[in-house]
Amino acid sequence: MTRDTAELTDDVLDDIPLAKSETPEELEDLALGEDYALNPEYVEMVVDAADSGDSKRLRELVGALDPADVADLMGFLTADYREQIIPLLDPEALGEIISELEDNIREEVLEATPSVTLARALEELDTDDAADVIDDLDDTKRFQVLAAMGETDRAAIETTLSYEDETAGRLMQREFLAAPEFWTVGQTIDHVREAGETLPELFFDVYVVDPTFKPVGAIPISILLRSRRETPLAELMEAVTEIPVDMDQEEVAYIFDKYHLISAPVIEPGGRLVGQITVDDIVEVIRDEAQEDILALAGVSDAGRDASVVEIVKSRLPWLMLNLATATLAVSGVAIFQAEIAQLVALAILMPIVSSLGGNAGTQTLAVAVRALASKELTTANARRIILRELLVGLVNGLCLAVVMGTATYLFFGPADHHDKLAIIVGAALVANIFTAAVGGILMPLALEKMGRDPAVSSSIFVTFLTDFTGFFAVLLIASLLLH
Amino acid sequence: MTRDTAELTDDVLDDIPLAKSETPEELEDLALGEDYALNPEYVEMVVDAADSGDSKRLRELVGALDPADVADLMGFLTADYREQIIPLLDPEALGEIISELEDNIREEVLEATPSVTLARALEELDTDDAADVIDDLDDTKRFQVLAAMGETDRAAIETTLSYEDETAGRLMQREFLAAPEFWTVGQTIDHVREAGETLPELFFDVYVVDPTFKPVGAIPISILLRSRRETPLAELMEAVTEIPVDMDQEEVAYIFDKYHLISAPVIEPGGRLVGQITVDDIVEVIRDEAQEDILALAGVSDAGRDASVVEIVKSRLPWLMLNLATATLAVSGVAIFQAEIAQLVALAILMPIVSSLGGNAGTQTLAVAVRALASKELTTANARRIILRELLVGLVNGLCLAVVMGTATYLFFGPADHHDKLAIIVGAALVANIFTAAVGGILMPLALEKMGRDPAVSSSIFVTFLTDFTGFFAVLLIASLLLH
Repeated sequence: MTRDTAELTDDVLDDIPLAKSETPEELEDLALGEDYALNPEYVEMVVDAADSGDSKRLRELVGALDPADVADLMGFLTADYREQIIPLLDPEALGEIISELEDNIREEVLEATPSVTLARALEELDTDDAADVIDDLDDTKRFQVLAAMGETDRAAIETTLSYEDETAGRLMQREFLAAPEFWTVGQTIDHVREAGETLPELFFDVYVVDPTFKPVGAIPISILLRSRRETPLAELMEAVTEIPVDMDQEEVAYIFDKYHLISAPVIEPGGRLVGQITVDDIVEVIRDEAQEDILALAGVSDAGRDASVVEIVKSRLPWLMLNLATATLAVSGVAIFQAEIAQLVALAILMPIVSSLGGNAGTQTLAVAVRALASKELTTANARRIILRELLVGLVNGLCLAVVMGTATYLFFGPADHHDKLAIIVGAALVANIFTAAVGGILMPLALEKMGRDPAVSSSIFVTFLTDFTGFFAVLLIASLLLH
Repeated sequence: MTRDTAELTDDVLDDIPLAKSETPEELEDLALGEDYALNPEYVEMVVDAADSGDSKRLRELVGALDPADVADLMGFLTADYREQIIPLLDPEALGEIISELEDNIREEVLEATPSVTLARALEELDTDDAADVIDDLDDTKRFQVLAAMGETDRAAIETTLSYEDETAGRLMQREFLAAPEFWTVGQTIDHVREAGETLPELFFDVYVVDPTFKPVGAIPISILLRSRRETPLAELMEAVTEIPVDMDQEEVAYIFDKYHLISAPVIEPGGRLVGQITVDDIVEVIRDEAQEDILALAGVSDAGRDASVVEIVKSRLPWLMLNLATATLAVSGVAIFQAEIAQLVALAILMPIVSSLGGNAGTQTLAVAVRALASKELTTANARRIILRELLVGLVNGLCLAVVMGTATYLFFGPADHHDKLAIIVGAALVANIFTAAVGGILMPLALEKMGRDPAVSSSIFVTFLTDFTGFFAVLLIASLLLH
């Protein structure tokens, strides 16, 4: 068992009163810092209780936390400690905790939990969250858990799983509040009071439907609440933004973000209302997609907080190997010019600067392009204008850098020994490379987007290759022309 | 006037019926693609109407759009076209359109709009959105607009502006629904029906307050709606997550995301309820903060969709100049080893590969660390474990790459002319540099975070410098040791 966290915090810990009679509220105050992140000291208290085998204390400490915080706590512990804690978890909260866990920890917890317990825990969740968990189970366990669930829940989960991953169908809940146009506010409220179980616990809009169950409008329930009982729904309803059940979740997030939606009805191809998506699921999508872009641009996938060294190496080494191949390819041209380098060693010093600056300029353009594509600020409507602007920016940046670096080169190496020509070589190569960076940085993500691929993935390796190659080749080619 | 967009879409446009008798619904269908992004063809229709000076048609085309789409449309047009459209905008929608506009376009629109029109438009907005716009005005215009507003709105905006930028105080609305503990569901609903104007149009929770107006609980209004009229609020209310008015917006977003909040009460230092934050404002914060990280890691700030070449150059050149300086510093060490390079030109070919791979490994580590810090998965509770793991990963990746590249070097250059030693030099330098990348990639963002700085900003330039320097220096140092 590792005790890494302990060593870091022992001295801090002495200042904390450890009387074992705190109320759950006091424990929660101890657990969370002002920023609502888990206190390292609290993690240490859990570790201490686990080490001394004090199950009662452990249950108390974990029980005082919100499911999201329990999930967070699990991420800070090693597998051994988690094993000790899992059986102590409140069955009521278990479903929510599981759906908050990171992938590899979730797998571990799912394996350790009996199928019947799991079935009960998942029945507490919204369909979309329960389906997500079921999807992670191996075939045998999935069969067992579904068999142990109630008929209605099982059917709902199976339908949800029939939609493709990362689509609206997977994000939606199958529970929602719908009412016909001719109902009044009062009738709707009475219906809500009677319907009870068939409605989701939380909902934010009433969807008004026509006789074929197509949504024709929506009313925020705060509007419902403030309107007179006799008002007909048709009078209150506003236009509604419908989400097709097969829409990609990134598109769904774009729509929620753009129109500031709190919930939206999901429709089948025929137009029939089949579910609703709420903004809390969208917050997760927006965060995840943005983080995916950060990692994709850096050429790395996140192996997870609890990943082993081997898992992390597997998530990073392939990219580095690919990079090794392209870098080798890029400098292989240099071999032709060995004579020039031997004659003028300064070239070897200046080449990497030219290629490094090109790489940086390319990364800048890429990041801006990927962001603009993701937010649909860059589309075919303005692509030509943006491309032209980027090329101009590349030219201007290249010229500015060339002047500075050319001057510096001249001052440093002086006029002797062909060194006067060095300044011109470096300057011209820089202009060429920064311009190339602009070309690659804007065209590559646009091309990937047009092909229906993710513009953040694999564009950076291409642009780096391009600027490495151009950097070396331009310096040496211009040198061989000027020096002979 | 540029007509870039026109050329791109002329051929597509021929297929679209242009009869000028569409209903607003038909126009909206023409305007938005299936993905709810603006159709390039629609932008072209607007440009055509503007070119032919057809104000009626222009008003029709723009009027059919949601404010968010009008704001989007503005971003696809040049300033000349915007000038033509601004006076045609529906005063009712103007406020919302302005608050959706990008910064530099917004500035232009604000200048072109009379103060009184602006005052009326802003009165339609929530306090937080109105304050945001007011904050962008120059002093004279701000004074005029505020003077033209109603007393209550002015006071609310001035209070909001007294909070620091990017804090909860700025995000919050001052309108919310609060009720004392002893009220019943029925009393609360009756109060909502009577209160009318003083309540926000949309709200999602009732905050239950004690006699000193401190929030003691919250009830989602869907729960209120489904409960019997005689139920006391105290029976329904759940624990509430309070947001201090001076909390940073990134912290607020973290809390909303973690606990899946739809709205949360904002409290003054004494604990008094002063406002509420709703999730739609948080969606924006989450998206913006993630995009900031992408751009910061790439060393670029977004100058905006409508920025000029000069503005973009200003947003990128300083970073490239800094990079020129550090790259120069990094290779300056190479000058000492000119003799080694002249003796063995192959070194000049291999050095850049070693430094480029180091740069990539560093970027991977950085991206993962920045993401983990942002989501509080990396804190002092597990920092030591994560650092150790990253160093191990660096070592393993370095060894793997060294074996591959060492072998390749040996096969390519063969055993003659000291070339047998090249494989060893390159392999050892790679291990050193990939390990260095791991050290810098994990420690630099942690250090910046500890100093209260943004870990995404300026860590990449440092790590690139570190790996450039180590790459060159390690190759040449090991070479000079082995070759003499």
